[in-house]
Amino acid sequence: MAGFVRSAWYVAAWEHELPPGGMFARTILGEPLVLWRTSRGDVVALEDRCCHRHAPLSRGAREGDDVRCGYHGLRFDPTGRCVEIPGTRAIPRSACVRRYPAVVHRRWVMVWMGDGERADPARLPDNYSCDHPEWRYRPGYLHYETPWHLIADNLLDFSHLSYVHARTLGGTERIAAIRPKVERLPDGVRVSREVPNVPPPNYYRPLWPYEGAIDRWLTYDFTLPATLLMRSGARPAGSCQDGGGDGVEFHSCQALTPETAESTHYFFMEAHRADRGDAATTEGLYEGLLAAFREDREMIVAQARNRRLKPGEPMLALPMDEALVRFRRLVEQRLAAEVGAPGASVDEPSSDQPSPEQPCP
Amino acid sequence: MAGFVRSAWYVAAWEHELPPGGMFARTILGEPLVLWRTSRGDVVALEDRCCHRHAPLSRGAREGDDVRCGYHGLRFDPTGRCVEIPGTRAIPRSACVRRYPAVVHRRWVMVWMGDGERADPARLPDNYSCDHPEWRYRPGYLHYETPWHLIADNLLDFSHLSYVHARTLGGTERIAAIRPKVERLPDGVRVSREVPNVPPPNYYRPLWPYEGAIDRWLTYDFTLPATLLMRSGARPAGSCQDGGGDGVEFHSCQALTPETAESTHYFFMEAHRADRGDAATTEGLYEGLLAAFREDREMIVAQARNRRLKPGEPMLALPMDEALVRFRRLVEQRLAAEVGAPGASVDEPSSDQPSPEQPCP
Amino acid sequence: MAGFVRSAWYVAAWEHELPPGGMFARTILGEPLVLWRTSRGDVVALEDRCCHRHAPLSRGAREGDDVRCGYHGLRFDPTGRCVEIPGTRAIPRSACVRRYPAVVHRRWVMVWMGDGERADPARLPDNYSCDHPEWRYRPGYLHYETPWHLIADNLLDFSHLSYVHARTLGGTERIAAIRPKVERLPDGVRVSREVPNVPPPNYYRPLWPYEGAIDRWLTYDFTLPATLLMRSGARPAGSCQDGGGDGVEFHSCQALTPETAESTHYFFMEAHRADRGDAATTEGLYEGLLAAFREDREMIVAQARNRRLKPGEPMLALPMDEALVRFRRLVEQRLAAEVGAPGASVDEPSSDQPSPEQPCP
Repeated sequence: MAGFVRSAWYVAAWEHELPPGGMFARTILGEPLVLWRTSRGDVVALEDRCCHRHAPLSRGAREGDDVRCGYHGLRFDPTGRCVEIPGTRAIPRSACVRRYPAVVHRRWVMVWMGDGERADPARLPDNYSCDHPEWRYRPGYLHYETPWHLIADNLLDFSHLSYVHARTLGGTERIAAIRPKVERLPDGVRVSREVPNVPPPNYYRPLWPYEGAIDRWLTYDFTLPATLLMRSGARPAGSCQDGGGDGVEFHSCQALTPETAESTHYFFMEAHRADRGDAATTEGLYEGLLAAFREDREMIVAQARNRRLKPGEPMLALPMDEALVRFRRLVEQRLAAEVGAPGASVDEPSSDQPSPEQPCP
Repeated sequence: MAGFVRSAWYVAAWEHELPPGGMFARTILGEPLVLWRTSRGDVVALEDRCCHRHAPLSRGAREGDDVRCGYHGLRFDPTGRCVEIPGTRAIPRSACVRRYPAVVHRRWVMVWMGDGERADPARLPDNYSCDHPEWRYRPGYLHYETPWHLIADNLLDFSHLSYVHARTLGGTERIAAIRPKVERLPDGVRVSREVPNVPPPNYYRPLWPYEGAIDRWLTYDFTLPATLLMRSGARPAGSCQDGGGDGVEFHSCQALTPETAESTHYFFMEAHRADRGDAATTEGLYEGLLAAFREDREMIVAQARNRRLKPGEPMLALPMDEALVRFRRLVEQRLAAEVGAPGASVDEPSSDQPSPEQPCP
Repeated sequence: MAGFVRSAWYVAAWEHELPPGGMFARTILGEPLVLWRTSRGDVVALEDRCCHRHAPLSRGAREGDDVRCGYHGLRFDPTGRCVEIPGTRAIPRSACVRRYPAVVHRRWVMVWMGDGERADPARLPDNYSCDHPEWRYRPGYLHYETPWHLIADNLLDFSHLSYVHARTLGGTERIAAIRPKVERLPDGVRVSREVPNVPPPNYYRPLWPYEGAIDRWLTYDFTLPATLLMRSGARPAGSCQDGGGDGVEFHSCQALTPETAESTHYFFMEAHRADRGDAATTEGLYEGLLAAFREDREMIVAQARNRRLKPGEPMLALPMDEALVRFRRLVEQRLAAEVGAPGASVDEPSSDQPSPEQPCP
């Protein structure tokens, strides 16, 4: 792993994770961050490491909009500047901690991990359903003890729905049998799939107890640093596309934020139309989603163990990997651009070409 | 640790560990393996890592004699060749996983970890009592979080019976006091010991409740990669050797299989004559053996901790180490031959010579 | 971490930790030690690693004043010389384990970790209150999974009492507000602080339930390798110093002994005058002290995590760090002298100067 893309907005937390009046600590890209809200409602994100003896500021206490370190009492304002040192009159000009640009953006607390001058609100993701009266969901979080890019790989190839999620999200081998359309986006890829005439997955039941054959469809953008925004749904098999009537529709927002090179935060939700179902429906969908995402995690953890047993072993690129290979190449280009060096690599060299043909022994 | 001897049969499992219709996963020499039986009863051992995204095949599902990966659905036949890729017509010729020669040999599932062309059934161990109507036993397994060679050292010097197993297998300091005969074998060493006129160890009781003094004897071959085959027994002190009559006799088969450089699988059993005792006797012997082998493990784990605190610290070779020093040298020769280099070393340089005499400070 | 100061007495154990007739094992400076008392009452400290196969001698058995290894039965006398090898007549002259000079010194079991020829009883610490009829205490021990020098830093800057121990030992921000006097000692530093007119800390209550304002004072020597000896106390605010009358007085003895580069033994006690209070008072003080020292440990563990996330990141030296910077420089000088090289470093370069002034971005 040659590093992380830094010039990007990362999800640091769900808005509800920030405790009123308190602080919240989370490690992102290997850096400890402390987050809180000022009295005006602004979100503050500082390096969670006092410049003095490196204690986490999050173990200290809020004082108004400031924070006081719980080790030796240095006080920092929301810009990261030290404004008080007990027993000391002159505050060194170098007494400060790093400040990260931060905003609450539709219930996602977003932090910019690169050069603060370049923090561009225009690059915030369009996770509209996270805060929209027409959509309803329960927010989800899972912690992974694996590198982030193995999880991105998973999200970039939905053929795994047929196998990892045979009894949850998938329900049919037809998903894997159908090749999706993959389009290039400026900051990622767009993946679209139509799966006609299949049984409904178990996971639809709480919202749409239809038992006949259905036509499924989904289309998602997977963009830097690692955000998935997806529309998906189904209608009775053979019925008109966009013809209204019976059916079900979802909007899902998911984001991966590396904690360290070897661990990852996974934020996820899948929203349904607010005018369908009640609180129990929303809860049932969340439970189904969580069960499925735990299936992913079990598989990816097992995969990561295999990677550790034989680091650097090349994988065999297949046609189904088109989206993930394209996305990996994009990450590599961005990493290389950020470090100013050409050789950056996420994990192993990527290739749109299938691996060189060596017949099996 | 300069590596493992690869051109050898290793015990991968007890036969009963292979679940009917299912699969069994075990890591051997740092490589993940998946094992199963075909409908014809043959044992299959494949690399437990799909060539596509490196997921363990053992997390997938059996389909007839094949296995289908549980991540993206690639299907492999028992030779390791990929025979189906969902959504893909052309299967790359390089789509395969490594196959390991494997056989069930007298209830031991054996795999050949080296070049498959050289897998030689003539080199399978003579663990006859593992599957013989005249012998009865309960199979044992222990997992060690230590390098394999520390356990081999233990098995190559039975003087430890007097101390580690004073209240279980040993029962007398006389075992350590008597030097065994050590003979060179083509692939290992033969160790023989006669211990006259000692009290019976507790561990004999379930089978032979004799309370007088006994003459004990044992002889074992310890051969590459790390297999112990031992005949042992006892008779009333002073009675004729091989003169029939009262006494007790055992045959023990034990094998070490490195899991990684730092952990080991230990397969063991000690069989008694089937015409003596009942099921409770067999169970009692097994429990006694297990208790004793846990004593070994506690000692070896403590020894391994000391080795980690001071890696490379030389040990003091003593006359009682004759068998283990010879075996270590054999391993080093074999490792050097396999890698084509002379300097291979198991852990530290071995020597038949006692260490240079430096008086204590 | 460039190593440990070796030519020094370290606390290996509280006297009561040595079991009568048995042995006690503890790892110090990365070396395993076994300790016991001879029939004459002398303390023996040997390397806890048999010279033969490196098993810990502490897993063996005492035989008179000797110890017999529990693996293959080698017997060692209290000087570390091997005096018996089962089955072997000639004992190699090199068969011995390292002996460490050891004494019980006022209930502290002290071992000299450097060249035994230089073990100088004159350098034992003056921990008189550990064994004195006029003082009473309960001995304490905590294990730290952090490097020792982070704990030494903590003990060298008591301004943390105002923040880490606001509700236990501290009770007022005034402690941090007042700069202590720091004096150089041949082997360490002396730190003195007077804190007038503050509320009494909770922790005094069991001994002195005075609720008015008090004048607090403390003075301690922190000397190599890492020993704190402190007098402290308080009297009603404004009353005469040393004028007798009402008040409270303590003597505290604390010592850090590195277990490994990444873990530490912490021995501590704080004694009160024996003519004040009863057993419950002593117990109450101990419980208060233990609660406070757990507060330190939580903070230092969190600090150590931050250090691991960004190893080598420089800290910002402030005036309050005067004592710890001086002590670190002393350790570095001693380390350099011991290894004969100038560049030894505890963790990061120390400096009495504040860090170069770089204005915050």
